Amino acid sequence: MAAKMRIRKRKIDVNQLADRILAKDRVALSQAITLVESTLKSDNLIARQLLEKIMPHTGKSLRIGITGVPGVGKSTFIESFGETLINKGKRIAILAIDPSSQRTRGSILGDKTRMETLANNDQAYVRPSAAGSALGGLHARTRETMLLCEAAGFDVVMIETVGVGQSEVAVSQLVDFFLLLMLAGAGDELQGIKRGIMEMCDGMVITKADSGNEDRAKMAKNQYQNALHMFPASEKGWLPKVITASSYNKTGMTETWEMICEFVEEMRTSGWFNHNRQSQNKHWMHEWIIQELKSQFYTHPIVAQQMETLEEEVMTDKRLPIMAAMELLEQYHQEIQLADDPKT
Amino acid sequence: MAAKMRIRKRKIDVNQLADRILAKDRVALSQAITLVESTLKSDNLIARQLLEKIMPHTGKSLRIGITGVPGVGKSTFIESFGETLINKGKRIAILAIDPSSQRTRGSILGDKTRMETLANNDQAYVRPSAAGSALGGLHARTRETMLLCEAAGFDVVMIETVGVGQSEVAVSQLVDFFLLLMLAGAGDELQGIKRGIMEMCDGMVITKADSGNEDRAKMAKNQYQNALHMFPASEKGWLPKVITASSYNKTGMTETWEMICEFVEEMRTSGWFNHNRQSQNKHWMHEWIIQELKSQFYTHPIVAQQMETLEEEVMTDKRLPIMAAMELLEQYHQEIQLADDPKT
Repeated sequence: MAAKMRIRKRKIDVNQLADRILAKDRVALSQAITLVESTLKSDNLIARQLLEKIMPHTGKSLRIGITGVPGVGKSTFIESFGETLINKGKRIAILAIDPSSQRTRGSILGDKTRMETLANNDQAYVRPSAAGSALGGLHARTRETMLLCEAAGFDVVMIETVGVGQSEVAVSQLVDFFLLLMLAGAGDELQGIKRGIMEMCDGMVITKADSGNEDRAKMAKNQYQNALHMFPASEKGWLPKVITASSYNKTGMTETWEMICEFVEEMRTSGWFNHNRQSQNKHWMHEWIIQELKSQFYTHPIVAQQMETLEEEVMTDKRLPIMAAMELLEQYHQEIQLADDPKT
Repeated sequence: MAAKMRIRKRKIDVNQLADRILAKDRVALSQAITLVESTLKSDNLIARQLLEKIMPHTGKSLRIGITGVPGVGKSTFIESFGETLINKGKRIAILAIDPSSQRTRGSILGDKTRMETLANNDQAYVRPSAAGSALGGLHARTRETMLLCEAAGFDVVMIETVGVGQSEVAVSQLVDFFLLLMLAGAGDELQGIKRGIMEMCDGMVITKADSGNEDRAKMAKNQYQNALHMFPASEKGWLPKVITASSYNKTGMTETWEMICEFVEEMRTSGWFNHNRQSQNKHWMHEWIIQELKSQFYTHPIVAQQMETLEEEVMTDKRLPIMAAMELLEQYHQEIQLADDPKT
């Protein structure tokens, strides 16, 4: 909080901030993320300069997306898996996206004690961000936050989301490897609702394979592995593997890492690894365009000024939504033309 | 298909088409939906004129959204439920959204024999539409199609989607009552992944309560009813009800209809019914704005012309996605200004 206050009050030296990030200064990293997440226009300009500066130093981390329904044990898995990676000499960053319930607007994660072990480890950096309504349930700056972590030299960046459907599509556009955590459930093995997410994942971990649950976990593993076989072959030519794990007994962690390494090696050899990152870059350019088009429109005075009246007319059935939209867009275009006209 | 060809080839008389729709002419309705779904610019203008014409005659139907995972028996339920409504003297329209698998691009529904009984009934109108990528898995014109059905005098419009998460949010913005179909599953009663959808629904039907499955269905009913009790009270002040039904034995159909009628009566009394429709109108105005902002941008020559080069630069890490986006947006604004400038 102190850092956040300070960053707003004095002029930020972008070069210095970039240098400190590259020197693996965690305070600088946190400041930079706050800056990048800021919605202030003045901050946005500095954030862009900073991102341009650190750009040559990004792209070297392995990007892993981790998802699963609430209760599957994501946090404990990430703690256990993270420790395994740290023991293998890796520095890891964890970006936890905290979605809000659509209706209650309450936080689903929110628990302050999450990932205590990792949060106190020098080799780990844990950053929770509230999910926005845009970008499919990610924070609007998750990608830029990831780039900052890469510049700060983390070997692995994990992005954690709650498995509520839409955010998975967005996360799959951010990461190299998409890991789905599953419970050894009874009867839910082949539910249609998960098919889309199962189709996206590169690997699956059956969690809580301990305390007498081992057999069920093994059975679930076989069922899911069979199910994954039934999907049409993915264009990357990789058949997702299923692993059973226990965060409590710390089993399955090395296997998970080996699976990911095997994936990365195969994908690098086939060229898919780079191909995927390239398509992702393209995807995010378009995401940015859409976000900016919206933001420019809605913050324009002529739009802001008329919005209330138009909404009122639409709400009271005086006008069709489509007609109101078209009219406002026409006025908006006339206005930017007048405002930007160098002759006036 | 013949109707579609004809509509493209001769000039459409909007007044005549509107009159025919209001006279409950099904061929005219189908032509109008094809027109409204068309992506041709010339069709769009006529479609808007047509919508303006029929607007005063819309809003009188009861709008019901129906969702559930594949395998829950949506089509058979809608057939059985639809027949019940027809026997009560209602004319019903069914808009079935056919989503495509994110990866395989294959159709999930696709089965041509769906809803044969209703499709051949004079009092029912069945219209499948392919889901687009925009508007959260709905067809971009589902709302306008619904308005056309209302103008054609249907008492009930049902919008059917597959329960894959994102489309439910969009559907809940379209309808008065949101019905969730559930299987009497084993163990999946309180899965987190469905919580968001459960929070949205106004009623739930446990399907396939027949052939010895009655007890499981009843048990599931109790479990879901308890689960719904645990959610925070909805702002509409309605506690969703759970009903068991069999499309095969045609049980639970009248109960479902009575539940919906009770809901509508309560919501009309409390004022929430109108309040909801008003917010929905507002929501769709904004959806239209976003769709149009995107469409205008991407179809502009300066954007179309440079897109390939920029995508290439972004893909090969010569430029950050955010920077490419900003630059293109700046050029776009300069161009519209030049093109629209009345002095040039």
